[in-house]
Amino acid sequence: MAKLQRRLRLGMVGGGPGAFIGAVHRMAARLDDRFELVAAALSSNPEKAIDFAKELHIPRAYGSYQEMVEGEAKHAEPIDVVAIVTPNSTHYPVAKAFLEAGIHVMCDKPMTISVEEAEDLAATVKRTGLIFGLTHTYSGYPMVRQMREMIQAGALGKIRMIDVSYIQGWLATPLENTGAKQAEWRTDPTKTGKGGALGDIATHAYHLALFTTGLTGDSIAADVTTFVPGRRVDDNVQAMLRFEGGAKANLYASQIAAGFENDLSIRISGEKGSFEWSQENPNYLHHLPLNAAPQLITRGGPTALPWATHSTRVPSGHPEGYLEAFGQLYSDLAELITARLEGRDPNPISTLLPGVEDGVRGMKFIDATLDSAQADSAWTKL
Amino acid sequence: MAKLQRRLRLGMVGGGPGAFIGAVHRMAARLDDRFELVAAALSSNPEKAIDFAKELHIPRAYGSYQEMVEGEAKHAEPIDVVAIVTPNSTHYPVAKAFLEAGIHVMCDKPMTISVEEAEDLAATVKRTGLIFGLTHTYSGYPMVRQMREMIQAGALGKIRMIDVSYIQGWLATPLENTGAKQAEWRTDPTKTGKGGALGDIATHAYHLALFTTGLTGDSIAADVTTFVPGRRVDDNVQAMLRFEGGAKANLYASQIAAGFENDLSIRISGEKGSFEWSQENPNYLHHLPLNAAPQLITRGGPTALPWATHSTRVPSGHPEGYLEAFGQLYSDLAELITARLEGRDPNPISTLLPGVEDGVRGMKFIDATLDSAQADSAWTKL
Amino acid sequence: MAKLQRRLRLGMVGGGPGAFIGAVHRMAARLDDRFELVAAALSSNPEKAIDFAKELHIPRAYGSYQEMVEGEAKHAEPIDVVAIVTPNSTHYPVAKAFLEAGIHVMCDKPMTISVEEAEDLAATVKRTGLIFGLTHTYSGYPMVRQMREMIQAGALGKIRMIDVSYIQGWLATPLENTGAKQAEWRTDPTKTGKGGALGDIATHAYHLALFTTGLTGDSIAADVTTFVPGRRVDDNVQAMLRFEGGAKANLYASQIAAGFENDLSIRISGEKGSFEWSQENPNYLHHLPLNAAPQLITRGGPTALPWATHSTRVPSGHPEGYLEAFGQLYSDLAELITARLEGRDPNPISTLLPGVEDGVRGMKFIDATLDSAQADSAWTKL
Amino acid sequence: MAKLQRRLRLGMVGGGPGAFIGAVHRMAARLDDRFELVAAALSSNPEKAIDFAKELHIPRAYGSYQEMVEGEAKHAEPIDVVAIVTPNSTHYPVAKAFLEAGIHVMCDKPMTISVEEAEDLAATVKRTGLIFGLTHTYSGYPMVRQMREMIQAGALGKIRMIDVSYIQGWLATPLENTGAKQAEWRTDPTKTGKGGALGDIATHAYHLALFTTGLTGDSIAADVTTFVPGRRVDDNVQAMLRFEGGAKANLYASQIAAGFENDLSIRISGEKGSFEWSQENPNYLHHLPLNAAPQLITRGGPTALPWATHSTRVPSGHPEGYLEAFGQLYSDLAELITARLEGRDPNPISTLLPGVEDGVRGMKFIDATLDSAQADSAWTKL
Repeated sequence: MAKLQRRLRLGMVGGGPGAFIGAVHRMAARLDDRFELVAAALSSNPEKAIDFAKELHIPRAYGSYQEMVEGEAKHAEPIDVVAIVTPNSTHYPVAKAFLEAGIHVMCDKPMTISVEEAEDLAATVKRTGLIFGLTHTYSGYPMVRQMREMIQAGALGKIRMIDVSYIQGWLATPLENTGAKQAEWRTDPTKTGKGGALGDIATHAYHLALFTTGLTGDSIAADVTTFVPGRRVDDNVQAMLRFEGGAKANLYASQIAAGFENDLSIRISGEKGSFEWSQENPNYLHHLPLNAAPQLITRGGPTALPWATHSTRVPSGHPEGYLEAFGQLYSDLAELITARLEGRDPNPISTLLPGVEDGVRGMKFIDATLDSAQADSAWTKL
Repeated sequence: MAKLQRRLRLGMVGGGPGAFIGAVHRMAARLDDRFELVAAALSSNPEKAIDFAKELHIPRAYGSYQEMVEGEAKHAEPIDVVAIVTPNSTHYPVAKAFLEAGIHVMCDKPMTISVEEAEDLAATVKRTGLIFGLTHTYSGYPMVRQMREMIQAGALGKIRMIDVSYIQGWLATPLENTGAKQAEWRTDPTKTGKGGALGDIATHAYHLALFTTGLTGDSIAADVTTFVPGRRVDDNVQAMLRFEGGAKANLYASQIAAGFENDLSIRISGEKGSFEWSQENPNYLHHLPLNAAPQLITRGGPTALPWATHSTRVPSGHPEGYLEAFGQLYSDLAELITARLEGRDPNPISTLLPGVEDGVRGMKFIDATLDSAQADSAWTKL
Repeated sequence: MAKLQRRLRLGMVGGGPGAFIGAVHRMAARLDDRFELVAAALSSNPEKAIDFAKELHIPRAYGSYQEMVEGEAKHAEPIDVVAIVTPNSTHYPVAKAFLEAGIHVMCDKPMTISVEEAEDLAATVKRTGLIFGLTHTYSGYPMVRQMREMIQAGALGKIRMIDVSYIQGWLATPLENTGAKQAEWRTDPTKTGKGGALGDIATHAYHLALFTTGLTGDSIAADVTTFVPGRRVDDNVQAMLRFEGGAKANLYASQIAAGFENDLSIRISGEKGSFEWSQENPNYLHHLPLNAAPQLITRGGPTALPWATHSTRVPSGHPEGYLEAFGQLYSDLAELITARLEGRDPNPISTLLPGVEDGVRGMKFIDATLDSAQADSAWTKL
Repeated sequence: MAKLQRRLRLGMVGGGPGAFIGAVHRMAARLDDRFELVAAALSSNPEKAIDFAKELHIPRAYGSYQEMVEGEAKHAEPIDVVAIVTPNSTHYPVAKAFLEAGIHVMCDKPMTISVEEAEDLAATVKRTGLIFGLTHTYSGYPMVRQMREMIQAGALGKIRMIDVSYIQGWLATPLENTGAKQAEWRTDPTKTGKGGALGDIATHAYHLALFTTGLTGDSIAADVTTFVPGRRVDDNVQAMLRFEGGAKANLYASQIAAGFENDLSIRISGEKGSFEWSQENPNYLHHLPLNAAPQLITRGGPTALPWATHSTRVPSGHPEGYLEAFGQLYSDLAELITARLEGRDPNPISTLLPGVEDGVRGMKFIDATLDSAQADSAWTKL
């Protein structure tokens, strides 16, 4: 088939005024200029949805996602893909509806609020053959991909230990009682699902561990705590993990680590060396080879590999950050869809985009963690 | 006047296939979604210019900037502003032509290749009343603006010393003889102008010193070196500076600091404390108050001020970088133009966008530095 | 009583040629010039012991610790205190013998190889009234003491979470099979005791958690691993801890984290803020107060408190390290003994010296960790 | 000759109660146990001198350095070497007197208060054949020696640029008017000599540049400032330097950089790469090779060379600091003296101890810097 002569048409559900992640998705989708945002149901309040779409110069504004599915289904130039950026509890019905209408999906995480929903989505994706991206943002960082590529190539030998932590302090106080929107829905189990810190950030940490190492989780022993009195979901997760093949991990996720901003850090040790990486300073990867000098790997430096250089836009020394990592996921999505439209294989690097199976694993992780915590931290299958 | 109901129309001159800074301008202009790139003369080779514009989905492709000035001048919906991203030697004629056609300008730096050109552009801007932005990128970083705001508010008291260095290693070898495009034009005096490292990066360092402190340069004593044999421009600049009012500075810019990527760092000391900031890790500002504990200031942390928070898109802990800083300059530009179109005063923060007077100062800095160097480092008026 | 007019007389058991920790004890004891090393049984090989003592200019050389106890007991100017720096398995008999002879003891950690031995030593110390120091080195660092002092004063409010890790990579390979002495005895259960990484470094991490926070351990759920095939003791410890009052901790100690040197790091979060400290860069303490800018605390900086400034020798900016922290424990010991000799109360800061009760807690920690690990990580009382 | 069977006998002039550097010399001399401090004239006040010596358990207490020279000259077991730790203005007469009495000298820096004195000392050292050490502390750091060794071995190729700065903030206010002893004498030209920051710290920076690179200074262009009103010496030094063979440097020394503690940092760039090292975190050396990944070198890591490992006492990961670097100079001194007493060649590493020629170069540096500053920063021979 011929080369696609246009930008892809993107729709968005959720992401109204004041929403954090919706704005992030829009910036990310713009960064590499492969999408045009042409349709949206930005709010569950139809009036707000339409006004805000106008403000953002989005041509086709809908009052609800149902209207949008219908409208796009019969449009001459329908959206190629929809971004779902609503609170967690509605990811499932929205994603399902668009998939059933034949539209690819880019979904925020955690993917659903139950394993059942997750597995149904996975089945739907399988049945329809559509593309489903899940925005585990941190997998878009060049240095994270570099780790994965080097580990696959054997740089660390067999993996032994992972130490991953994701700590924030913004919920150290009962912020949800002060009118703060982000805090409200993220601590409301009807919107956020069963887990608090668990769903919001521990899932990122777990995904990062799997993504970088290629390991498969076996079981977990967890202690889950709500430190802030009155809070309706957990705000602190501690866990020990075991993987198939013998590797182990520590996982620590907290939203009450007062004073910390968004400190996702990982240390991976194998027989031949270790990696150390921290999201707050993401342009640098520390490689500690066994019996050799520690090396600093930079996005575009002399030892950067294709998975890193592909996912970077400016020379190293010119820092990239969160939006660029997020943008990379959108570029991967664009490549997957474009390749399909052009009838060719996609660039294999773009298949790094997390998908529906990652979402299923994330939901199982949430369930296993809660089950273990309720069973006095007994080892529980992942 | 009424609120502007559309994105601003942006044109671009330069930035063809493989050009670094053109692509950066395009990403930066997209980031906050206030521009639409509708016209371009992307290359001095007309065919390339037109092909590449098509590839980038730019509707109006021109074969030369002259054609573009003409074409836009008579277009029903002409561009509001043109981005000039050609090699330095053509900034002046291009900028002049668009200004004379009544079109605002966003120009890469250094602004021109002589003080005369610079002063003529300044006079043209004054005469036409048009908006002229100069992309001294580093002034778009939130933490740089935070420094400026805190210094204006007296946080450091009277400034005494600035220590600014901008060092890179990419030209430690005669890269320009290997076919590397970026190295070729940046070391070719007919394209880059009189200065090598001087024009390319020392001007950024000088601008950063002035921008953050609000000081006015008085004189300079400089040593300018070409370390790589056969190179036609300088690749290393050392200077001592004096400012009006008694403050002093060290300035060091090098492109032969082998192994360094893009290390622009500044330390500013006043009677009441110091600041320390480094571009390669830009999300953190170190404030060292006299007789109190050093403080870490983050983009969105508890002590971030309006000039910082205005210039940031995601919560702190989610790193931003070079493209976001660059994007901020475009958002400032958008605000200045939009305010004019809407008949209102712009947000004062957006007046931080460097302009034509900064360009004049930059060209005078280049001349004074070279004059001092040729006079055995004699103190020379800036 | 009158002021002591002499240096204290120190003896040493263990610390022969090539021993790491013996040399450290000697340097540490010299640093603040309050001890004179006058007697020693440096090796279990009498000839070596005597030759090496001569080389070190130690006047009274003994061929065994038994001879030394006897010799010192009847000496006119016997040692005031003995440093025990033998492999773990002999700490108990040596300490016991000297205590029974009325001589104070400075003992390396872990204190013994069983809880029974530890409790017997504690009883002996109680009965004899002698001073017993245990060299948990890291409690001698000024910034560690600053943490403790600030936490006691309420700087963090109620403690919620501790995240402590102590990782090294030197045993990532079967080094003990290559003739490396340090590796040999530390992986030989007859010399090192039941735990490998557990006794050697996890005990330090546990002590650090207790020392800084003043918390009392309640229970532990642990996973203990031997990653290197053929190794006779563990080389990796993962644990979740619970403290009386509701605080919790992660503890991770590893000697197979290839490429890491001696990375003991701790993050403590309470209701009002967090601390972050790392042993490899020990002169800096990061204080992250809730809703205020993160602060950097330095040994002699504006916010250093008495417990820190007392434990430092040179102005901040002039780094101190491991030997100074170790030396501080010896200075504390000197103060405790001197105060006793002078019939006065010691400087209360010197009572921070870890003692026999810390040793008992350490041995219980080892047992509980192994018990939990053997019971499939079941929560086990500390 | 036979192996020396005793510790060396050390004397000290200066270093009374409250003196900073005297206490440092004493700790440094003790660290490796090769000296015994047996004689001292600790203060110019005889009573204080004798009382304080008693307090420090120094057997032979003198009321003045003249008495000490006399007393030691006729003692059966005279001191081998004297440490001179008085204010700068008396270094010369004291050193001269001990040298003439046949006693080796360890002298604090700057060596004298004039080039004439310095050259006379150098001639005296030459004539007497005695050993003269000068405590440029920073040359004792293992990573500084590693730099020197690697540079000598060609790791950076031909050196092009040095960027060295030494900044402190403790004199940002007129501290000398508040009764602070250290500030008083260091800003009193009759005690400190012609230079303030120049003599106190710029000389260290200059020595470090020469020591690490082996270069020979050619000329300097300097700007010397007294920022604090009423201060009698300079408190800020800026300079550009040229070396024989074409290398250049920036040198910046300040005592008014408010909030900085003791930040001595150096970046050295050659044709094949760069080094970066900072005194406040001295255990790490960053090596940035051209076209290869930046490497971290640690004191005892896989790429540590003999000059580094020789100068370190504990495994890397266990930080060493200022006292250990200072102690290394004393160990070098001990080796030089011992080798002489034993009639053998010293370990060549110990000849790294700075000596009287470094002192001469330092005094010439001070004069040249002041001459240049007075001549409007004209290039002046070093």
